[in-house]
Amino acid sequence: MSAPKKVVLAYSGGLDTSIILKWLQTEYGCEVVTFTADLGQGEELEPARAKAEMMGASAIYIEDLREEFVRDFVFPMFRANALYEGLYLLGTSIARPLISKRLIEIAAETGADAVAHGATGKGNDQVRFELSAYALNPEIKVIAPWREWDLTSRTKLIDFAEKNQIPIAKDKRGEAPFSVDANLLHTSSEGKVLEDPAVEAPDYVYQRTVDPEKAPDTPEYVEVSFERGDAVAINGEALSPAALLTRLNEIGGRHGVGRLDLVEGRFVGMKSRGIYETPGGTILLEAHRGIEQITLDRGAAHLKDELMPRYSELIYNGFWFSPEREMLQALIDKSQEHVTGTVRLKLYKGSVRTVGRWSDHSLYSESHVTFEEDAGAYDQKDAQGFIKLNALRLRLIAMRKRRLGS
Amino acid sequence: MSAPKKVVLAYSGGLDTSIILKWLQTEYGCEVVTFTADLGQGEELEPARAKAEMMGASAIYIEDLREEFVRDFVFPMFRANALYEGLYLLGTSIARPLISKRLIEIAAETGADAVAHGATGKGNDQVRFELSAYALNPEIKVIAPWREWDLTSRTKLIDFAEKNQIPIAKDKRGEAPFSVDANLLHTSSEGKVLEDPAVEAPDYVYQRTVDPEKAPDTPEYVEVSFERGDAVAINGEALSPAALLTRLNEIGGRHGVGRLDLVEGRFVGMKSRGIYETPGGTILLEAHRGIEQITLDRGAAHLKDELMPRYSELIYNGFWFSPEREMLQALIDKSQEHVTGTVRLKLYKGSVRTVGRWSDHSLYSESHVTFEEDAGAYDQKDAQGFIKLNALRLRLIAMRKRRLGS
Amino acid sequence: MSAPKKVVLAYSGGLDTSIILKWLQTEYGCEVVTFTADLGQGEELEPARAKAEMMGASAIYIEDLREEFVRDFVFPMFRANALYEGLYLLGTSIARPLISKRLIEIAAETGADAVAHGATGKGNDQVRFELSAYALNPEIKVIAPWREWDLTSRTKLIDFAEKNQIPIAKDKRGEAPFSVDANLLHTSSEGKVLEDPAVEAPDYVYQRTVDPEKAPDTPEYVEVSFERGDAVAINGEALSPAALLTRLNEIGGRHGVGRLDLVEGRFVGMKSRGIYETPGGTILLEAHRGIEQITLDRGAAHLKDELMPRYSELIYNGFWFSPEREMLQALIDKSQEHVTGTVRLKLYKGSVRTVGRWSDHSLYSESHVTFEEDAGAYDQKDAQGFIKLNALRLRLIAMRKRRLGS
Amino acid sequence: MSAPKKVVLAYSGGLDTSIILKWLQTEYGCEVVTFTADLGQGEELEPARAKAEMMGASAIYIEDLREEFVRDFVFPMFRANALYEGLYLLGTSIARPLISKRLIEIAAETGADAVAHGATGKGNDQVRFELSAYALNPEIKVIAPWREWDLTSRTKLIDFAEKNQIPIAKDKRGEAPFSVDANLLHTSSEGKVLEDPAVEAPDYVYQRTVDPEKAPDTPEYVEVSFERGDAVAINGEALSPAALLTRLNEIGGRHGVGRLDLVEGRFVGMKSRGIYETPGGTILLEAHRGIEQITLDRGAAHLKDELMPRYSELIYNGFWFSPEREMLQALIDKSQEHVTGTVRLKLYKGSVRTVGRWSDHSLYSESHVTFEEDAGAYDQKDAQGFIKLNALRLRLIAMRKRRLGS
Repeated sequence: MSAPKKVVLAYSGGLDTSIILKWLQTEYGCEVVTFTADLGQGEELEPARAKAEMMGASAIYIEDLREEFVRDFVFPMFRANALYEGLYLLGTSIARPLISKRLIEIAAETGADAVAHGATGKGNDQVRFELSAYALNPEIKVIAPWREWDLTSRTKLIDFAEKNQIPIAKDKRGEAPFSVDANLLHTSSEGKVLEDPAVEAPDYVYQRTVDPEKAPDTPEYVEVSFERGDAVAINGEALSPAALLTRLNEIGGRHGVGRLDLVEGRFVGMKSRGIYETPGGTILLEAHRGIEQITLDRGAAHLKDELMPRYSELIYNGFWFSPEREMLQALIDKSQEHVTGTVRLKLYKGSVRTVGRWSDHSLYSESHVTFEEDAGAYDQKDAQGFIKLNALRLRLIAMRKRRLGS
Repeated sequence: MSAPKKVVLAYSGGLDTSIILKWLQTEYGCEVVTFTADLGQGEELEPARAKAEMMGASAIYIEDLREEFVRDFVFPMFRANALYEGLYLLGTSIARPLISKRLIEIAAETGADAVAHGATGKGNDQVRFELSAYALNPEIKVIAPWREWDLTSRTKLIDFAEKNQIPIAKDKRGEAPFSVDANLLHTSSEGKVLEDPAVEAPDYVYQRTVDPEKAPDTPEYVEVSFERGDAVAINGEALSPAALLTRLNEIGGRHGVGRLDLVEGRFVGMKSRGIYETPGGTILLEAHRGIEQITLDRGAAHLKDELMPRYSELIYNGFWFSPEREMLQALIDKSQEHVTGTVRLKLYKGSVRTVGRWSDHSLYSESHVTFEEDAGAYDQKDAQGFIKLNALRLRLIAMRKRRLGS
Repeated sequence: MSAPKKVVLAYSGGLDTSIILKWLQTEYGCEVVTFTADLGQGEELEPARAKAEMMGASAIYIEDLREEFVRDFVFPMFRANALYEGLYLLGTSIARPLISKRLIEIAAETGADAVAHGATGKGNDQVRFELSAYALNPEIKVIAPWREWDLTSRTKLIDFAEKNQIPIAKDKRGEAPFSVDANLLHTSSEGKVLEDPAVEAPDYVYQRTVDPEKAPDTPEYVEVSFERGDAVAINGEALSPAALLTRLNEIGGRHGVGRLDLVEGRFVGMKSRGIYETPGGTILLEAHRGIEQITLDRGAAHLKDELMPRYSELIYNGFWFSPEREMLQALIDKSQEHVTGTVRLKLYKGSVRTVGRWSDHSLYSESHVTFEEDAGAYDQKDAQGFIKLNALRLRLIAMRKRRLGS
Repeated sequence: MSAPKKVVLAYSGGLDTSIILKWLQTEYGCEVVTFTADLGQGEELEPARAKAEMMGASAIYIEDLREEFVRDFVFPMFRANALYEGLYLLGTSIARPLISKRLIEIAAETGADAVAHGATGKGNDQVRFELSAYALNPEIKVIAPWREWDLTSRTKLIDFAEKNQIPIAKDKRGEAPFSVDANLLHTSSEGKVLEDPAVEAPDYVYQRTVDPEKAPDTPEYVEVSFERGDAVAINGEALSPAALLTRLNEIGGRHGVGRLDLVEGRFVGMKSRGIYETPGGTILLEAHRGIEQITLDRGAAHLKDELMPRYSELIYNGFWFSPEREMLQALIDKSQEHVTGTVRLKLYKGSVRTVGRWSDHSLYSESHVTFEEDAGAYDQKDAQGFIKLNALRLRLIAMRKRRLGS
């Protein structure tokens, strides 16, 4: 790879990506364009502008991507009821492709030939950033300083920062007791004090959800309405995608909903332990399953369920911009045409449960299922033929067993 | 089908199966053998003996099958993390094949040519009973009185009972407000007051779990130990399968764990709504996932996850004794060789969460995942090649897009 | 089911469906509308009109559906490379939903309340006809005379025909030595002389393909061009779907291509043996795989391959008009956007093999794969990191094995 | 990676691996142990011994692994009807894990700390060798000279050979027009003259099968007998695994059976074109499908078919020694318990077709399927209930469509 001339950097404004900004300038003698996105991580972005300016960024992009994030990434994923390894709501994974998409677009706008990110060489995020980048621009150069430089300890980083007049917040001099990633969908924490999976995570790790023991003593009901698979209203109030997820985060957060302590298998090969908080997403998943229960046909639902782990794995591994993810999305979206209606949920001290659901699109037929007289909707005698023919192949196997004595 | 000469009846001792007992005798003029199993439903079985004797059963089998039920049916199923439609722990489904197995064995012992059950023509249980029966004896006759007789209303049933001197408990004269099935794994309730899925289930439906709001204000920790995929000890105390599940039911029940309000797709074609309480099973699933997190390889885990919906569907639909369920079981069991270790869980007001796990068989490697120096366990530079080759096909697609302009 | 007032009958003009026409009139005293479709079975349809008129059909529909058949049913299915049980090209299965669709549409046009077909109670076709019918009109009545009447022997059928002045062709008095179904995609033969699967099918069974031993001694090359997954031209000549399949049938037929002797598992539970001739379809499948080899990404292709058996099973079982088939179709169609190009095939004495393929949409990159210098297209050193990270989880398993001594 | 002290080299005796032998000695100053296996590639092995001795190998292993190869690798794979991308019989892929297994075992025996192979950095074989090696010994060093050295052209290689007194066969001075790999299962050819996938492979590429046009004018019948999924006899003669496959190769080879021209997706990301000849394997696959047709239940067969692409992909990608391959193998092996019986096949000018099959374990029931009277084996009326309940969910969807007008 020849040296980059101009790099678009995914820039948070924090110490680490500021060091990267400077390192790129000094190491490659290249221009650096910074890109800072509001994905709902809950931090002020304007300080990033000042810092980038001060450090001589050749252009500065600061953008609010919250609506795009929820509408085009989070919601499509939730149509699938996606869970990685049965439990993880993919909060970090789903944000990476959007960041890469903007990095590549900004590279095109600014004539940059490279993009850079601050993810380490041990994690999944480097894979997600880079697969997305290559899928969108096959000629792009990708620079991952953590895999390249020799700033391999906190001390060396601080030294580099001091030598280069990079401002260091007081609390950043020492090592953080764990590492955090946040966006509108979730907050994840990992590393350091969390590295022993036998030991319960200390309470101070949780940042976005109240301890269930401190949640209100009274349950709260919330109604989520869906149209074609996407949530559109809370308690009857229509909301934009990002506003809706924000609202669900508030509701879930105050009831301690959506905490997860998980050891997961990374794409790069090792297992890692993470603490995830996904208050709104946890409600959304429960609600989406609730509305699908009455509006989605069994054949459709089971096919979706069988393909969900594969779909989730693709997102986790960074293959959002791959033909197979897009094919699965086409299948999933096709299934959602009638996933319209409302679910009533009960939140209480860490849990959320569906307690009711209704829809004009419902396939639930009281006249078919009733214990009462069903006025001929269903002929119980049909069940005999149904069972007999389903049993036929099993009986042929049993006859063989008898015949052969085994 | 020629008339049966001797029928083995799955007999609970209750009013409905007592009516069936009498009806079989009068309708077919045949001998009836009763079979009553203790699967942990929590009812006295001896009254069933007295009643069956009084009604002239030609032989009476009463058996405690709890250990066999948990060891040979529940535990193998939990190795798969089985959930039907994402949520249902299959508590009723998994009990049916065992009952059928004993019905068929007793038919062989007593020279009976038929078996009978009290499941209706609208439900899944008839399918489960009968597919299992046919799979184990291809020549058996199966009698399902609810699909045959004309006792189609409560009034007619009571009339028949009175005419035939069948004792009727006072509270059985009227219609029950809902229908219940119970065993050591779960209690399910459905029908009548539960038939409108929009309406929250009244609290009196729940029989086995305390209302989370009335659960203790203090969380409880419990440790579940596994060997080769099966739970073997609670808080360090080794327990037999049935004793272990009983213990987990007590613990889960008092914390309101394991309530589920579900609308599900029945195999016979319609949707139905059920309220399920699976306190011990809910803990067991969480714990099993917890121990798999550190002991099961990612490739193995993902394959299991992808096949789980199919496996669950087979059990739900009644295909326990089918070659494909046995093939999947062989695959699942193979994966469990190292699923050995202990999980620590926290129960609190309706929820159960893994908070720690440890094992000699752990694949979690702190030296690989650590944010600290890893002493060469992992070379971050390898990640670049990994990403580059994973990206190659995506880049070739992107090059085509450029070339073709779309 | 109340008696039908007006029935639309799938009418071939042959003896059996003529008997059904009369039987419906006499058994139910109802009007009968006949529907005869040209699906490329190679028979004159006008005689069916005369016969139906003579027998008092209340309306007569005769339609050429060949283009619709190939365009909307055969081609979408071939996009999936569909094979049932690894070998069967689904020639009969794919025709049934179209016939049912027209039956239901004609019922709506003519105010009929029922449809009828001539499929027996042992086969798959009854299921395919009826599932499609119910999916398109949930209130329709379906009459399957073979499951209802007592004309259970050839003698009784002939008697009925004679009593009702139904003309009987000379060669129809005795039993046919086997039963045939044909359309533009295939000819299938089964029953009678073919019922022992150990015995080779006699040569006179084959009707549409020359014996490979009698095929030309010189191979023939043919080029099939595709656009977005569908064949559009033969040897450079653009052809409509039905014309194209007709042409491939001629070419394949004269080279003895597409013969299959199969024992398959029917949806109704037993195994049956069929002889299939699918000359054009066999070429089409080979060609479609050939063009996908260079135009379809590996991730997309493998996902398709994994879902193909399920898709094929759905079509075989009669679930064309089901949400899950439509979902899979959406996935498959999404994959075909770039399946455009030309395949060169060699036909010779029963076999067809791809020998070349080219496309503007090709993903094949000679610069990447070449044994020669590749000018930096691919860095072989990347392979090391790729392998190391793919191996990591396997190494962790091996370390455990060492640690535990097993 | 520290420098290796002793390396076990997969040594063919040819020029390339001889150069590697010398290069390892000079580059690392290490001992080299050579391992040469007879996998049925059809070459003399003793010359390899002389050459290795001459070049100072510190130990020389020459082994006939043909029986182990077929029994423990080829046959288990054929139980799955494995085909990669629908067509490729995995002849190269399945040989690599066995070679790696012996390399690792010999390393343990000889105290070597590294293994080396002659596969290039662009292909799949490096991945297969190395994943297997790491899975069997997590600490092993793997040396892949083609990824490391600077002998990147034919000229440099020949120079190196000459400087190091490595004998060079006359025909090896120039570049081969294509590259070949062979073993008892197949011969593959790729590269150079084959690199344009549009151009038909020249006839001189084929080495193991006669041109179908030159095959005998008379068809040949062959009978293959199976026990529990594995072939055990040809035309009634019991044969060991390797002897059986050798015999099938002879038979298939003389009839031109098993030629394949394929463009496939490599695991390392690009597409490549290969010419494969698998005469015996092609017969074996057809025969195995033939015997499964009558002995394998539909539920079992369809599950196998759905998992086959995944299983094949694992083998292709080099994951033979992975938990997920072993899990799938357990599932597949479980299915083969009754796959016992005999298949009759007809070979003629390039094609092989099943024409008959029989077995004591057959599930085919003439009494169920017959067009004749079946003496009550099957009640056609059962079909109605079967269809009605299968249709119920489709009717509920259709009712919704009516209700909503879409």
